[in-house]
Amino acid sequence: MTEHSLWRFSRALHRAINERQLEDLEALIDEEVDWAIHGPIDMFPFFGARRGKAAVLEVIRQIAENLRVHRFDRESIMLGVDQAASMMRYSLSVLDANRAISLRLAHFAQFKDGRLRRLRVLVDSFDLVEQALGRPIHLPGIASL
Amino acid sequence: MTEHSLWRFSRALHRAINERQLEDLEALIDEEVDWAIHGPIDMFPFFGARRGKAAVLEVIRQIAENLRVHRFDRESIMLGVDQAASMMRYSLSVLDANRAISLRLAHFAQFKDGRLRRLRVLVDSFDLVEQALGRPIHLPGIASL
Repeated sequence: MTEHSLWRFSRALHRAINERQLEDLEALIDEEVDWAIHGPIDMFPFFGARRGKAAVLEVIRQIAENLRVHRFDRESIMLGVDQAASMMRYSLSVLDANRAISLRLAHFAQFKDGRLRRLRVLVDSFDLVEQALGRPIHLPGIASL
Repeated sequence: MTEHSLWRFSRALHRAINERQLEDLEALIDEEVDWAIHGPIDMFPFFGARRGKAAVLEVIRQIAENLRVHRFDRESIMLGVDQAASMMRYSLSVLDANRAISLRLAHFAQFKDGRLRRLRVLVDSFDLVEQALGRPIHLPGIASL
């Protein structure tokens, strides 16, 4: 039984982010990859949609310039033949601000011939924004809207 | 081939929310269900963790008192034997505020004997908060933090 594409991709991605070594990752991304991280792009310009391998490698370079991964736990996971989905909790630091943040995200990945073909990521964005700001945002309860 | 538990649960849940008819749903929730919707509970008191069928039915009643589902699209989905995960986009209205919102979420569900045993939901919470407030929250770029 061969290793699931998710594990290889995950290792290469974390190496790309933490060591800025993108060689392993390059071989694991489809030329026509369809990529989106849903979240506030005003604050995090490396969120949003990207099309094609070059654009995706560029956005991973931007992530690597801004974030460092300390640890992650997979809280939920599903593996299919050429698909994978998981909910993960990351401990990260924002490099310029030297600030530790924890981030929960969900991803859905599709692979083709072992390469990433489609990725959708959703982050718990409000929690992320508060941590990145370093202060809470006051919210009214829904009943008082 | 029998219908996947997800479809039955999804129909019953949407009926519970929109018609406040919880009978169908009651039979599809395990007594020991482990439930969590990650998001800002200050604003949305029906987010957060719940344990056991009674607590989950109560929180679904609270959701039904606050929201109405107009439509939803599944953007990504994985089905396993007793598991399902999807990323969905909902068109909702907040009843008291009479405000339309669109919400993207990801869920991971585990079923046991056709009943929901564990659910984890992650929402694009910043986008949700801005829509619920009815105004944008100003954000600095990550580079200026």
